Amino acid sequence: MSEEIPYAEHAEAIRRLMAEYGRLLDLKDAPGWAALFAPDGEWIGGERYGVIAGRAALAAFVEREFAATPPCVHIFGSIAITMRGRDATAWSRWMLIEQRENGGESDTGLRIAIAGSYSDIIVPTPEGWRFKRREVTADLPAGL
Amino acid sequence: MSEEIPYAEHAEAIRRLMAEYGRLLDLKDAPGWAALFAPDGEWIGGERYGVIAGRAALAAFVEREFAATPPCVHIFGSIAITMRGRDATAWSRWMLIEQRENGGESDTGLRIAIAGSYSDIIVPTPEGWRFKRREVTADLPAGL
Amino acid sequence: MSEEIPYAEHAEAIRRLMAEYGRLLDLKDAPGWAALFAPDGEWIGGERYGVIAGRAALAAFVEREFAATPPCVHIFGSIAITMRGRDATAWSRWMLIEQRENGGESDTGLRIAIAGSYSDIIVPTPEGWRFKRREVTADLPAGL
Repeated sequence: MSEEIPYAEHAEAIRRLMAEYGRLLDLKDAPGWAALFAPDGEWIGGERYGVIAGRAALAAFVEREFAATPPCVHIFGSIAITMRGRDATAWSRWMLIEQRENGGESDTGLRIAIAGSYSDIIVPTPEGWRFKRREVTADLPAGL
Repeated sequence: MSEEIPYAEHAEAIRRLMAEYGRLLDLKDAPGWAALFAPDGEWIGGERYGVIAGRAALAAFVEREFAATPPCVHIFGSIAITMRGRDATAWSRWMLIEQRENGGESDTGLRIAIAGSYSDIIVPTPEGWRFKRREVTADLPAGL
Repeated sequence: MSEEIPYAEHAEAIRRLMAEYGRLLDLKDAPGWAALFAPDGEWIGGERYGVIAGRAALAAFVEREFAATPPCVHIFGSIAITMRGRDATAWSRWMLIEQRENGGESDTGLRIAIAGSYSDIIVPTPEGWRFKRREVTADLPAGL
């Protein structure tokens, strides 16, 4: 972290990075989303997805997993950022809203598909703050 | 943006403005909600609602559209704020929880009615930071 | 609030406190959650729950009310923090996602169980920022 730029501006830039992560994923903009990671950045998705490393693999992952899915919206809450001098860590909550079949007149068809958490290491790069490592859990539905 | 007040306090004031937007809308406090806009502020709601400009029109809009609706809660996530010197821009996610008919024993009756985004221009005024322009999208249900 | 530590770092610490509140509650970590309150801190839950004061009572409350409940995820949005010199106030939105019986093929079983607000007084302690007073409302379902 540059000594010259104040703490608050860095924290704000990290919040923008996180919002962009959801915005671009919901737009299914695979290369735009992959560019939010450092060139050697990793998305870690547990037993189901394993480790996806590097922007080319990240973009291909989104193409493969999300491009054909129905419209969706990610909502993030409770972002806890810790600045550590040269990098930052963060923990945050996410939930995914999907459009499913309509269950009747009183139903919008919108469902919470999954809810979980992100544990991140975020680093400053010449392009700005980027994800070095984003570890994803899916906590609900339990046993997914 | 005043040079004397640090960056962080401005960003925090903008987050308070955004939270108030949801709090007052859920309370159906039309004049209170309208006062969160600059006197010439605009709420832009696409083809469905068009442009609502000025506090009197904004308050009337909320009275007309929200006063008689069932209890609701707005949840905002992923706020990305960019300070630009004399004003600020922001992008954020919103979702609206409504109470509908209960679908049975395992159902609370709470539904996600809509989810979308806000794109804002926010300006400092003698009353504090206020919305100059808030453009609203409803992304889900798709094709609303 | 110490004069030496900048405003932004305090606000960031308060956001971390709030995220921890949800994270530890979802983990059903009663003593960890209770330690987020000042030693004489209060959780105020209206007519249904009354005032729970002090860490021992707070931990017992979580054990009693949450330990046996199904997996859940708290999502917080719209956090409005106001620094007041020696302490801080905050207002924020919360919603609770619970896993219920599955309603069929197009259903994940995830439901919004409750949505409400927190009104907080947060104080600096030798352990960091802690809740002095957290007043909770449950706004939806209405009339809960």
